[in-house]
Amino acid sequence: MAEDALRGGIDLGGTKIQAIVADSNNQVLGQARRPTPQKGGPPDVVAAMVEALEEAAEAAGVAPDTLEGIGVGAPGGIDDDAGTLARAGNLPGWRDPYPLAHELGDRFGAVVRLGNDVSVATDAEFHLGAAREFSSLLGVFWGTGVGGGIVLDGRQWSGRGTAGEIGHIPVRHHGLPCPCGRHGCVEAYAGRRAMEARAREAVDDGAKTVLFKIMEEKGRDRLTSGIWERAIERGDELAEKLIDDAIDAIGTGVASACNVLDPEAIIIGGGLGVRFGEPYARRISDAMMPHLFHDDDPPVIRVAELGDLGGALGAALLVA
Amino acid sequence: MAEDALRGGIDLGGTKIQAIVADSNNQVLGQARRPTPQKGGPPDVVAAMVEALEEAAEAAGVAPDTLEGIGVGAPGGIDDDAGTLARAGNLPGWRDPYPLAHELGDRFGAVVRLGNDVSVATDAEFHLGAAREFSSLLGVFWGTGVGGGIVLDGRQWSGRGTAGEIGHIPVRHHGLPCPCGRHGCVEAYAGRRAMEARAREAVDDGAKTVLFKIMEEKGRDRLTSGIWERAIERGDELAEKLIDDAIDAIGTGVASACNVLDPEAIIIGGGLGVRFGEPYARRISDAMMPHLFHDDDPPVIRVAELGDLGGALGAALLVA
Repeated sequence: MAEDALRGGIDLGGTKIQAIVADSNNQVLGQARRPTPQKGGPPDVVAAMVEALEEAAEAAGVAPDTLEGIGVGAPGGIDDDAGTLARAGNLPGWRDPYPLAHELGDRFGAVVRLGNDVSVATDAEFHLGAAREFSSLLGVFWGTGVGGGIVLDGRQWSGRGTAGEIGHIPVRHHGLPCPCGRHGCVEAYAGRRAMEARAREAVDDGAKTVLFKIMEEKGRDRLTSGIWERAIERGDELAEKLIDDAIDAIGTGVASACNVLDPEAIIIGGGLGVRFGEPYARRISDAMMPHLFHDDDPPVIRVAELGDLGGALGAALLVA
Repeated sequence: MAEDALRGGIDLGGTKIQAIVADSNNQVLGQARRPTPQKGGPPDVVAAMVEALEEAAEAAGVAPDTLEGIGVGAPGGIDDDAGTLARAGNLPGWRDPYPLAHELGDRFGAVVRLGNDVSVATDAEFHLGAAREFSSLLGVFWGTGVGGGIVLDGRQWSGRGTAGEIGHIPVRHHGLPCPCGRHGCVEAYAGRRAMEARAREAVDDGAKTVLFKIMEEKGRDRLTSGIWERAIERGDELAEKLIDDAIDAIGTGVASACNVLDPEAIIIGGGLGVRFGEPYARRISDAMMPHLFHDDDPPVIRVAELGDLGGALGAALLVA
């Protein structure tokens, strides 16, 4: 069975690289995760991707060269025809187009297809996850940044290549600076990176918080989703305030997107979205309602079912 | 020629009813305009629609019963299969579903189709107007309210029936009350009705303006697009300030919609949009840019080519 059309899927994130090996029924036979190199350049990142996929193959009990195809979901500028990835701001030294498909294809002897990380994760939820019964949906990926994926009438909508940028919907006039360089974007309040920067500033200004204490206890160098969750459990006021702001920003931005698209469903994914789960999806829904035009019949809102593996499963769908 | 498949088109607005008779090449053979009744109920509005279309037929030199089909673009809740219009907030006493198609069909002996006013105007610009060469576009209709129409991959996108509500994208946190009952929507700053309310409040608070003086001189009872234009020409500071706010709100809302859709083109229509034309379309573009994610390759922005007749022409396309 496992010999029949095995595929690899790699979700290339700014923090971690998640690899899976799936069979023709999209069952995950093996998986592995590596931290994304924070220094160096594309070859270092590719080396980590290769290791992760080899490890996933090993976990699946198959030789790496039995994979017939490999799909990669990545941030930045993707040219699937050329097989290159460019301008991946979250990856070290990755500006110019780099022949990612060629490198991976050479190593594994497989067809490689590249897709946008958020688009493939949305596709996974649409085909295999929480949005299976809908024909239109907005995927909301709440993690290091805030990304959005769109399916309309059963098809991905990517516009001229950058549709679904819900993290950069402006929600505050003359608001906080966003990592993108603009002001008042959803991501300036809700992206984990921006939330961490706000927490550090608050501490510099004398605020008390257990966030960084938990970070040290866990031996981490940044505020992961788990650290935020732990701080909230401990009733940390700063963490609660920043999460409140994040939810309010996401709710407002999602309402803006829904007033434009009027989709059947909203799927909340991403590291923070999956970690916080249903109760926070309901809070996002509550924050959305005051701004939703079609509020007598709001879209269904659900947490991504495929969790952390959605991106890699969606990547593997690229070569299905 | 005129005998060959003549069609009627009616744009049913809260202020005016615009009717046309078009031939099979979408040439306008005759047109007429009536004020929308501000009192009474659906029968009064239908009577005015009948008069307008009869007058347009007369101007075209044809008998009203030679029309093969009649299309109507209307605000509110349309059920084209049932031929009813409901919840038309801008029309007097029009709450329950009213058999508009049946009434008009009986009177003219023609097939009648109903469509959303903004959708048909967008469709007209897409097929016959400023967006002919594009396959995806956002139509922005800046008038009494602010409406939006969406074409993606050459097809209207209406979601579950209320897509494109760009007038109700939130652009100010805890902002001004909007006629829709929410706060901080684009329309709370840019809808002509809301702008007039702001102007009246400012006068009550002691502000000086020529807006209402021009209104009296023109014998009008509301601030029309022409009155706003005249006041701006005279350097009226209050009018300039309110128009500045309107443009800023539209620019922000359009940027939000573009960050979601990433369309090829933006078409600016509606009473104010068409009246103010290119220079103001550029100002909207300038106001959009700081919030546009894809700002190295912004969408083309144009004024609606079909002007005041776009809605009626788009309505006539419903029966093409």
